[in-house]
Amino acid sequence: MALKIKPLSDRVVVEPQAAETKTASGIYIPDSAKEKPQQGKVVAVGKGKKDHDMTVKVGDVVLYGKYSGSELKLDGKDYLIMREDDILAII
Amino acid sequence: MALKIKPLSDRVVVEPQAAETKTASGIYIPDSAKEKPQQGKVVAVGKGKKDHDMTVKVGDVVLYGKYSGSELKLDGKDYLIMREDDILAII
Amino acid sequence: MALKIKPLSDRVVVEPQAAETKTASGIYIPDSAKEKPQQGKVVAVGKGKKDHDMTVKVGDVVLYGKYSGSELKLDGKDYLIMREDDILAII
Amino acid sequence: MALKIKPLSDRVVVEPQAAETKTASGIYIPDSAKEKPQQGKVVAVGKGKKDHDMTVKVGDVVLYGKYSGSELKLDGKDYLIMREDDILAII
Amino acid sequence: MALKIKPLSDRVVVEPQAAETKTASGIYIPDSAKEKPQQGKVVAVGKGKKDHDMTVKVGDVVLYGKYSGSELKLDGKDYLIMREDDILAII
Amino acid sequence: MALKIKPLSDRVVVEPQAAETKTASGIYIPDSAKEKPQQGKVVAVGKGKKDHDMTVKVGDVVLYGKYSGSELKLDGKDYLIMREDDILAII
Amino acid sequence: MALKIKPLSDRVVVEPQAAETKTASGIYIPDSAKEKPQQGKVVAVGKGKKDHDMTVKVGDVVLYGKYSGSELKLDGKDYLIMREDDILAII
Repeated sequence: MALKIKPLSDRVVVEPQAAETKTASGIYIPDSAKEKPQQGKVVAVGKGKKDHDMTVKVGDVVLYGKYSGSELKLDGKDYLIMREDDILAII
Repeated sequence: MALKIKPLSDRVVVEPQAAETKTASGIYIPDSAKEKPQQGKVVAVGKGKKDHDMTVKVGDVVLYGKYSGSELKLDGKDYLIMREDDILAII
Repeated sequence: MALKIKPLSDRVVVEPQAAETKTASGIYIPDSAKEKPQQGKVVAVGKGKKDHDMTVKVGDVVLYGKYSGSELKLDGKDYLIMREDDILAII
Repeated sequence: MALKIKPLSDRVVVEPQAAETKTASGIYIPDSAKEKPQQGKVVAVGKGKKDHDMTVKVGDVVLYGKYSGSELKLDGKDYLIMREDDILAII
Repeated sequence: MALKIKPLSDRVVVEPQAAETKTASGIYIPDSAKEKPQQGKVVAVGKGKKDHDMTVKVGDVVLYGKYSGSELKLDGKDYLIMREDDILAII
Repeated sequence: MALKIKPLSDRVVVEPQAAETKTASGIYIPDSAKEKPQQGKVVAVGKGKKDHDMTVKVGDVVLYGKYSGSELKLDGKDYLIMREDDILAII
Repeated sequence: MALKIKPLSDRVVVEPQAAETKTASGIYIPDSAKEKPQQGKVVAVGKGKKDHDMTVKVGDVVLYGKYSGSELKLDGKDYLIMREDDILAII
């Protein structure tokens, strides 16, 4: 959360939350079979733009469409950077 | 209805209503033959945006086009999240 | 006309008028040869939106392009729901 | 001209003018060889919309692009209904 | 120039200027080899629209992109009708 | 620079600057191998439009994307006419 | 940083930062295998436009999408020129 990145405009940096690696019956799923995560934690928020005030805050857990955003590697960890409009909901 | 999800912007979470599983003559339709539902109950409503005040309310039964919205799983149940503009009518 | 449906935004529910089932010379046209109707009676009208006040009223007979709107079944009858902008004229 | 049709918005109903059926040298052209007309007489005019006041009037002879508008049959005669913006000029 | 045509909106009627029919070395170019003209004289100008005041005047010689506008035949002569925005420059 | 052309709207006439015809090692590059120039001198500037005041001035040397603008021949010389928005920078 | 280029409108000139040429295990990666850089230093910033004030400043290290911007060679060095909206974040 002490990420030193400043997203521009109405962009948000999201840390995808780890997908389940075990099925209900306890079988481990190999990496390539895991579903791409669609849930993540907001770690950085832009300042918005003239016609768009930001709603999400750092720490919010959000849902976003598969394939939303660009992948980003910071300090060896994977993040997604997307426009706030790609975020569906806060949970 | 006590769903702890906050849809962003002009989005709405809809719980699709179960499709008929029996025909008029009493024959059960196997799952894959069921028509995808187009009717559902609103369970969460976003705050709208600058040029769009929300019309639907939680509890409204609405009609929406096939293929509208993104599928969402919350507490093991399936929902759809869509923009209010994808909702055709309140019935 | 006592249809309990409230179209959202600038949408209109239209009841397509029956296509001619007899040619001028009195020959009955089988169902699949009937031209898709392009004329119908307005049965429900939305409230419009910020930059669009509604013009058509319940009871108006209107013309609309083939393929306009989504098909809708209410109380066993077929309707079309379309945006007012898909309506070409009142006749 | 006593057409009881009210075009919606910025739409105009045009009665296409008959294409020449005889060439300069007096040879009759069979129907399928006639060029689709691009000239017509305005028979009904909509009320315009917020950002578009209407310019053409009933009775104007106008030019419009081939393929403009939708074909319409009223009282057994063929008309075209198009947006005023599809009309190129008044002649 | 006494053309009785009134272009609608921001449209302009241009009379294409004859392409060179002789090369520099005096060889006549057969008709099909002539380059499509891109220079013409303005013969009629529309009234513009709310967000577009007209710049060109009747009599101006203008340059326009190949393939701009629709061809038009008036009193047996060929013209082009195009939006003023298709005109590149006055020369 | 005494070019008697008046570009319309936000257009600019640019005289492409000759591409290098000799490589660093002194080898002449045949004409077809020369890279299409992307640098040129502004020779005429339009008046801009309601929401676009012009920035470049006659005499500026500018960079523009390959394939920007339309080619133009004036007094036997080749120019490009493009919208100011196609100009990337002044150098 | 003493670059004498003035980007137009909301454009920014970025100097891509050298990609890693050695892997973690000390193996040199040949040039064609290097990943296209997505990080760079801002060396010139335009004045913005009516509805867009500039956020980045000369000297900022920024992230941008692969394939953003146009390549530019100035004084023998490679730069990218892109719209500020193509810049994802300042790091």
